[in-house]
Amino acid sequence: MVSAVILVSGGLDSTTLLSIAIDQGYQCYALSFDYGQRHRVELDAATEISRLNGVVEHKIVSLNLNAFGGSALTDNSINVPTEITTGIPVTYVPARNTIFLSYALAWAEVLGCQDIFIGVNAVDYSGYPDCRPEYVDSFAAMANLATKSAVEGDKVKIHTPLIALTKGEIIKKGISLGVDYSKTISCYQANEKGEACGVCDSCRLRRQGFQQVEVSDPTRYELKTN
Amino acid sequence: MVSAVILVSGGLDSTTLLSIAIDQGYQCYALSFDYGQRHRVELDAATEISRLNGVVEHKIVSLNLNAFGGSALTDNSINVPTEITTGIPVTYVPARNTIFLSYALAWAEVLGCQDIFIGVNAVDYSGYPDCRPEYVDSFAAMANLATKSAVEGDKVKIHTPLIALTKGEIIKKGISLGVDYSKTISCYQANEKGEACGVCDSCRLRRQGFQQVEVSDPTRYELKTN
Repeated sequence: MVSAVILVSGGLDSTTLLSIAIDQGYQCYALSFDYGQRHRVELDAATEISRLNGVVEHKIVSLNLNAFGGSALTDNSINVPTEITTGIPVTYVPARNTIFLSYALAWAEVLGCQDIFIGVNAVDYSGYPDCRPEYVDSFAAMANLATKSAVEGDKVKIHTPLIALTKGEIIKKGISLGVDYSKTISCYQANEKGEACGVCDSCRLRRQGFQQVEVSDPTRYELKTN
Repeated sequence: MVSAVILVSGGLDSTTLLSIAIDQGYQCYALSFDYGQRHRVELDAATEISRLNGVVEHKIVSLNLNAFGGSALTDNSINVPTEITTGIPVTYVPARNTIFLSYALAWAEVLGCQDIFIGVNAVDYSGYPDCRPEYVDSFAAMANLATKSAVEGDKVKIHTPLIALTKGEIIKKGISLGVDYSKTISCYQANEKGEACGVCDSCRLRRQGFQQVEVSDPTRYELKTN
């Protein structure tokens, strides 16, 4: 079997991604990051999803992007917006996918594998620059000059099977592969119990996805008392 | 003044790099990494060098590349070679410069600056793929698709003023700028007192550099008793 590194956050997209990689026959190594995100509870989801899918290994790497701040996800002084915004939102984390992919590249080289999967999406992508196809292509070109393995001929491929799908199409694909979306956490400010706020852009895009494909939404929402 | 992020390891090259950036008029933010390297004492040198040069801020980011291993610098089960080897040596750390530059990119974006300095060198570079000009150019191209700032027009530049210099030329440049090389640590297995082994390839290249320019070598070497 061919091995691959899969970036698994514990959300809807990356859980679907993992099922796609498994369906394509890859032996999967799941990689998650504890980067000081508000919704740290997503890592519990990532651990459970990795276990349920029988990955070879699940690694959670601690980053500390709080050291830099600059995003509503890593800086508690910036609030998460409660509506879908236009342009690049304040939940954008500076260079996040570049850092994530760099670690995936390092692990892939140590494992001797050439395949990396990332669940970026350029349709419902909230305006993040590092979710676009031209960014991913450019990262792959750089990666193939960066490592000993690549220089010696083992070229790296960055797989982005979700990049051109709508949220609804991602959900349909996942359901066809048996994904249980009740285990996934997408909310940018999920509480400790893993309950979603229902109002951040990640929640809104996710909810719209279930509506698009007329699938009942299994997300556990936090009950607001005020 | 224009700000720049400077990757400062505490070694000969990056200390010279910092002096060059200051000489070019940049307001400098120094960035170092605690990545589980054997020669962790280099971080003390980086701190002292940053202080002596009056940088605006010196950040040490913890990485934990030991989680992956795969290098003599981050895996204690692999010995540091005591001779200069041909090809890419076991001291190569998978995707290290890609990870370092990704963090520099993140910090630069948060600071609102567009200039990053890295002390890579393609002459005495020990065969590391991520020290070559084509790699750096490719990283810059990727970076300019990756971030919100770049997409909005603030293009990033990766400065590599040492890339085509010999070790001797780097030392001459540094001396002309007043660098005190006795404060720097290049050895891959420097001891806790900051004394160099004298035999790893980093020590050998450094020593050759001082010989090339007929400058007395201020490195503190460990006295071996056996």
